[in-house]
Amino acid sequence: MESEQLYHRSYCRNSYNSIASASSDEELLDGAGIIMDFHTTEDDNLLDGDAASPGSNYAMSNGGGAASSTTHLLDFLEEPIPGVGTYDDFHTIDWVREKCKDRERHRKINSKKKESAWEFTKSLYDAWSGWLVVTLTGLASGALAGLIDIAADWMNDLKEGVCLSAMWFNHEQCCWTSNETTFAERDKCPQWKSWAELILGQAEGPGSYIMNYFMYIYWALSFALLAVCLVKVFAPYACGSGIPEIKTILSGFIIRGYLGKWTLMIKTITLVLAVASGLSLGKEGPLVHVACCCGNIFSYLFPKYSKNEAKKREVLSAASAAGVSVAFGAPIGGVLFSLEEVSYYFPLKTLWRSFFAALVAAFVLRSINPFGNSRLVLFYVEYHTPWYLFELIPFILLGVFGGLWGAFFIRANIAWCRRRKSTRFGKYPVLEVILVAAITAVVAFPNPYTRQNTSELIKELFTDCGPLESSQLCQYRSQMNGSTAYTDDPNQPAEPGVYSAMWQLCLALIFKIIMTIFTFGLKVPSGLFIPSMAIGAIAGRIVGIAMEQLAYYHHDWFLFKEWCEVGADCITPGLYAMVGAAACLGGVTRMTVSLVVIVFELTGGLEYIVPLMAAVMTSKWVGDAFGREGIYEAHIRLNGYPFLDAKEEFTHTTLARDVMRPRSSDPPLAVLTQDDLTVEELQGVINETSYNGFPVIVSKESQRLVGFALRRDITIAIENARRKQEGIMLNSRVYFTQHAPTLPADSPRPLKLRSILDMSPFTVTDHTPMEIVVDIFRKLGLRQCLVTHNGVTASDPRPKRRLGERLLGIITKKDILRHMAQMANQDPESIMFN
Amino acid sequence: MESEQLYHRSYCRNSYNSIASASSDEELLDGAGIIMDFHTTEDDNLLDGDAASPGSNYAMSNGGGAASSTTHLLDFLEEPIPGVGTYDDFHTIDWVREKCKDRERHRKINSKKKESAWEFTKSLYDAWSGWLVVTLTGLASGALAGLIDIAADWMNDLKEGVCLSAMWFNHEQCCWTSNETTFAERDKCPQWKSWAELILGQAEGPGSYIMNYFMYIYWALSFALLAVCLVKVFAPYACGSGIPEIKTILSGFIIRGYLGKWTLMIKTITLVLAVASGLSLGKEGPLVHVACCCGNIFSYLFPKYSKNEAKKREVLSAASAAGVSVAFGAPIGGVLFSLEEVSYYFPLKTLWRSFFAALVAAFVLRSINPFGNSRLVLFYVEYHTPWYLFELIPFILLGVFGGLWGAFFIRANIAWCRRRKSTRFGKYPVLEVILVAAITAVVAFPNPYTRQNTSELIKELFTDCGPLESSQLCQYRSQMNGSTAYTDDPNQPAEPGVYSAMWQLCLALIFKIIMTIFTFGLKVPSGLFIPSMAIGAIAGRIVGIAMEQLAYYHHDWFLFKEWCEVGADCITPGLYAMVGAAACLGGVTRMTVSLVVIVFELTGGLEYIVPLMAAVMTSKWVGDAFGREGIYEAHIRLNGYPFLDAKEEFTHTTLARDVMRPRSSDPPLAVLTQDDLTVEELQGVINETSYNGFPVIVSKESQRLVGFALRRDITIAIENARRKQEGIMLNSRVYFTQHAPTLPADSPRPLKLRSILDMSPFTVTDHTPMEIVVDIFRKLGLRQCLVTHNGVTASDPRPKRRLGERLLGIITKKDILRHMAQMANQDPESIMFN
Repeated sequence: MESEQLYHRSYCRNSYNSIASASSDEELLDGAGIIMDFHTTEDDNLLDGDAASPGSNYAMSNGGGAASSTTHLLDFLEEPIPGVGTYDDFHTIDWVREKCKDRERHRKINSKKKESAWEFTKSLYDAWSGWLVVTLTGLASGALAGLIDIAADWMNDLKEGVCLSAMWFNHEQCCWTSNETTFAERDKCPQWKSWAELILGQAEGPGSYIMNYFMYIYWALSFALLAVCLVKVFAPYACGSGIPEIKTILSGFIIRGYLGKWTLMIKTITLVLAVASGLSLGKEGPLVHVACCCGNIFSYLFPKYSKNEAKKREVLSAASAAGVSVAFGAPIGGVLFSLEEVSYYFPLKTLWRSFFAALVAAFVLRSINPFGNSRLVLFYVEYHTPWYLFELIPFILLGVFGGLWGAFFIRANIAWCRRRKSTRFGKYPVLEVILVAAITAVVAFPNPYTRQNTSELIKELFTDCGPLESSQLCQYRSQMNGSTAYTDDPNQPAEPGVYSAMWQLCLALIFKIIMTIFTFGLKVPSGLFIPSMAIGAIAGRIVGIAMEQLAYYHHDWFLFKEWCEVGADCITPGLYAMVGAAACLGGVTRMTVSLVVIVFELTGGLEYIVPLMAAVMTSKWVGDAFGREGIYEAHIRLNGYPFLDAKEEFTHTTLARDVMRPRSSDPPLAVLTQDDLTVEELQGVINETSYNGFPVIVSKESQRLVGFALRRDITIAIENARRKQEGIMLNSRVYFTQHAPTLPADSPRPLKLRSILDMSPFTVTDHTPMEIVVDIFRKLGLRQCLVTHNGVTASDPRPKRRLGERLLGIITKKDILRHMAQMANQDPESIMFN
Repeated sequence: MESEQLYHRSYCRNSYNSIASASSDEELLDGAGIIMDFHTTEDDNLLDGDAASPGSNYAMSNGGGAASSTTHLLDFLEEPIPGVGTYDDFHTIDWVREKCKDRERHRKINSKKKESAWEFTKSLYDAWSGWLVVTLTGLASGALAGLIDIAADWMNDLKEGVCLSAMWFNHEQCCWTSNETTFAERDKCPQWKSWAELILGQAEGPGSYIMNYFMYIYWALSFALLAVCLVKVFAPYACGSGIPEIKTILSGFIIRGYLGKWTLMIKTITLVLAVASGLSLGKEGPLVHVACCCGNIFSYLFPKYSKNEAKKREVLSAASAAGVSVAFGAPIGGVLFSLEEVSYYFPLKTLWRSFFAALVAAFVLRSINPFGNSRLVLFYVEYHTPWYLFELIPFILLGVFGGLWGAFFIRANIAWCRRRKSTRFGKYPVLEVILVAAITAVVAFPNPYTRQNTSELIKELFTDCGPLESSQLCQYRSQMNGSTAYTDDPNQPAEPGVYSAMWQLCLALIFKIIMTIFTFGLKVPSGLFIPSMAIGAIAGRIVGIAMEQLAYYHHDWFLFKEWCEVGADCITPGLYAMVGAAACLGGVTRMTVSLVVIVFELTGGLEYIVPLMAAVMTSKWVGDAFGREGIYEAHIRLNGYPFLDAKEEFTHTTLARDVMRPRSSDPPLAVLTQDDLTVEELQGVINETSYNGFPVIVSKESQRLVGFALRRDITIAIENARRKQEGIMLNSRVYFTQHAPTLPADSPRPLKLRSILDMSPFTVTDHTPMEIVVDIFRKLGLRQCLVTHNGVTASDPRPKRRLGERLLGIITKKDILRHMAQMANQDPESIMFN
């Protein structure tokens, strides 16, 4: 077994190859024919696992026989070359290679664990490190979410006034100790001073209104300015919601620093500032980014995760589940969000760990209890009234609204972002943020529904009118009669307060719709969940109140007759708000099951799944009719990230040969030959081209494929050899074979690069339909695939043409994405239904 | 585009090939060199999609030029051969081919839909048929589940007595109209007569006890006998839980009739009988089978699903979600169960449809309301007391118990099933069922906890003691004082009733453990969920009561001091029962997230997720320490189904060459040559071997791979040609090439088989590590993969050896399974941790 381990140092595909080729050499020397029974007995020995030593010993001695220095060289090269197997920034990882590397590491630990107690402990630590890292991630995400909630709450109230007894209390906390009994009174406790009271000394009147208005704008602008400056100076990656980038990263792209400690720190601080500035944005999306930063940072504590990009992505999947879990107080919804929306590679083990991380995060947040309601979110509600079948009609209409809003928002926002990218306007991000924040603040202050925190608005809209509600939305006639029991509160005719609230809500709806389009994409952390939900909740509440009044005044209509008698509490406007919120969020993100589960976890029971599902499904279908992309996919495409969406099916009839490079007009494919290049020639090929990898072939004449070598690995290996190996000169021969080629006596020492050669690159024939190629790329997470030509037709009379497989070209992930975009433009309709 | 469609008749890989090879012929005739810039301009035209016509026209005329009859032959062979592309019973499907076929069908419909309104309607119908079929499946599953619930309830009560006022009422329904007010009284309403009362005329005394005992056994045996006879005579596939087989079917195996209408009918009837017979089994697993039968039967209404095995499996995934949804009243849990436990290929579209099917099924069941409690399951509970951190210790202990039970059960049950398979004992299934039923009935009757229906037992154990509970388990001192308010019911010292109940529960636990081992695997429908949950619930309730009494008598211990004062209601024995049930179910099935979600949906809130998860995780870890397989995987292995588990990682260092066939000792690989076989020779190869497919090579000398042809397709094609084509004789030449080979003038008409040739078979090199091969098989759902040898080392001095890729062998799914079993036996420890 020891000699086997010797060969397992670099990543596994190569190491296997060294053993295998040893015995395959032997086999060829044995004179095994080209007929089918070519197997030597070595094959069966290899299967037993302990007979690799003769094979490899043979290779060693054979290698030594070629030149006296080669043995030394060979030994030297079995050392892993530092840096080989890592990736450059903005490159795609090779999932197969990474998973292979991990299994290799695992095997090594496993084989060692019986050697000593220390090794056994190490193997246990390794086995449990996955749980440890998700626990830490969950703890950190929960704690940060609590911190952000509390800080944002306090700063948000700072725009209105300050707590004299204790500066660090927000409005609600300030008034907790107050003795006022009613809710309305408690809001105006003496400890809490509005800015007008503090500065002008008067709480009422136009002067104090203007003072408050001014201070509101002042604080909003200060917060926004601070946020955008921090982002611009310290961590440009901290802007936006981060979900498009996380999706891309999880699909196997490298963006260095996107999940680093600076991003985490700045995003946490600026998120608080951005939310407090009153911009039309939410903290839910950025919380996912924050959680992923935590996951990434903690994964550096464990070599199992830090050194393997594929394993690290498992942690990130779990972290994103934890992020949604704390954002919405929905652990199951978080896991499903991670599964449905962000993750690419999601084995069942990750499912379980994601669930654990989500629960840990939720528990930490609940212990912090930032909202003082023992719930994880501000807008947790419990409804107690059933819904009726007829109500599905308004729910579906809300779904249509959500779908239309989603489609409109995506188009408008993408158009605006493209404009920002392409024009001079995008060069002044600070100015833009200040401008948007100023407009938002100026317009928002007069309307109570836009002045308050969006989460609070959603809470108010979701909550049903009960005897304890002091909201303007609940000014029904019955309350004036002094009836207090909740269950005795039937649908009642509305008072003027409700009508004025309706007008204000309509204005708030228009305001939110316009501002959100311009806000999402600003250079501050900005989530989309809360504004979308707010828009849906406003629309839903309006529909709900309309339905309620309709049912009250027309309770003898055949529609209402059966189930909505006078005095019965048959319609719940809060439920309409919730359904509307789900529909709008669904329209924008095109989430389905996970969204329903998230909203379901916000409410008490399974009772409302059907209304929710009807609305979310309608919203998705309506939205899809205008374009299948959700906002995150649209932003991914806008930014040109190499993301191969698993949801979109490839339905065209093209073949691998139509997509592969080089095309007929291109220069020929850059290939390396296995044993007749010099270092200088190799460097020449590398410098002249910008490809990320090169196929290695037997010789220019035969064009038969030997393997594939990555640009980065070649560069690192040459650098390394120059530094550490003597006698490597520009005219040194480079060889990828097992044994050095026979060289003239005066030639310099050759450079062996076999250890960086991937000897089993994925190949498809040029006849393979692209749908299969796309499937392979998606499912296996490939980075590139070689295209060969298989056999020839026998009808061809010339025997010369009877060639075997030849290397024709290469298909990379980017080629596929380009091709898909091309095909989609030609035939945009074909992807509508499947 | 029309000529393109001409080529799209058989399944897509071939049709592509016909186009591609046309232009590739041209290219070769053009004299494009063997260097890299070999592309003709045709490639770019092909990409545009409308330039395929020149290429294919060229092929046609070229084909026509070879022989005057060839053109006709060519036209003829473009017709799809009936039966090609279908599968034999007990064979594995090729997922790639099926998905390809579906995309082809979809493209055809899409391209036609603009032709007429009728075609457009058809395309809409096609797009919506997926939703339609899952809706129908959900409706049918819900209705059948309701039917089974009601029938099983009635027949179960028939063992005790009969309702005189209305025969078809069960005990509870019979007494609904009764005027007795207390629960205990209501159970003994005058309309309901026990058998002793009816036959002997007396309700009390030893005589009536014996009479009731006798009638209980009589009915139990009758039901069991009827069930096993029905299964044996009409539908042998109706036995067992069906989940192992459904897992195998979903992974791509064909078992004809397993999901047919006979199985459905007989399983529905015998499931009722088996549950009513009092055997230690449940209806939850078989309900999944019943739902899958519904899904399969409804999929025959839609050609999109009936003609495509891969698409059909999407419906089956949704159906299994619907099955769990109605079995446990847990729609989300059902979807996760389908995702985690049974499904193999689960695209996001299926997730959404599964969710829909699960909801529809749950709603139908709720409308039927079989239990009269507006809930979907008998044992729905809502707890209102919190749990405390210290309680995690007993919860984890319950998890350990669950894991131990699971490991023990799997070993014991598999050992017993193996014994049944291997010895003469298995030849008398009817006798075995009668024997087990008799023992069960005799032992179960004296103990009230085993006499009652297992679901009712679970309900009683889950339910917390409130003032309305008349159970023996709730005989606490406080109730004698007459305090009635639920929240005023603190933990109290137990009365003798509780202690006797504890004894009976212990006996019931032992009884259930033993009987379940012998029951699961009988030739009647038998689910494992309910017995496992019952065992866990009994153990949990015992632990819960013990904890409660401990806390009562030692409330000043430091452990209880903080949170469990005298008179406080700090421990909920029902919660312990539920945690225990989850732990035991987890130990047996090794389900994780889906199990937690299912149990979470049984209770009111998120509050208890942490105890549940702690127990389920512990149970899984403890169970895994004794063997990683769940009961379903163990049964799959016992039955030898070709199931490639996605959960188990392949961690060995073997290479493709170690696994491929033929081995050195085997006869050479059976291959076909592309143009020099006669029909007789071909039939000879087919008759002499039992392989399911044959690689097609250029010639015996070159061994270069051309494609792959399936045995079934070849047989069908020859049969078809014999029937329909004149002049096909035994010495007719068979060719797989585009154009007929040049033959002597007097030779009979050749047979073209190109249309059944898969020209892009998956290939790997012999150097590819098996871990990658296993990954490819799993992720792409392959049936077989060809192994080629790539390049040679240049150090080999003999130029003759410079061969290109050669076909070496083949790896099938079964080879991989065999190899994995072999490796696991060698090194059982290596799969323990990863």
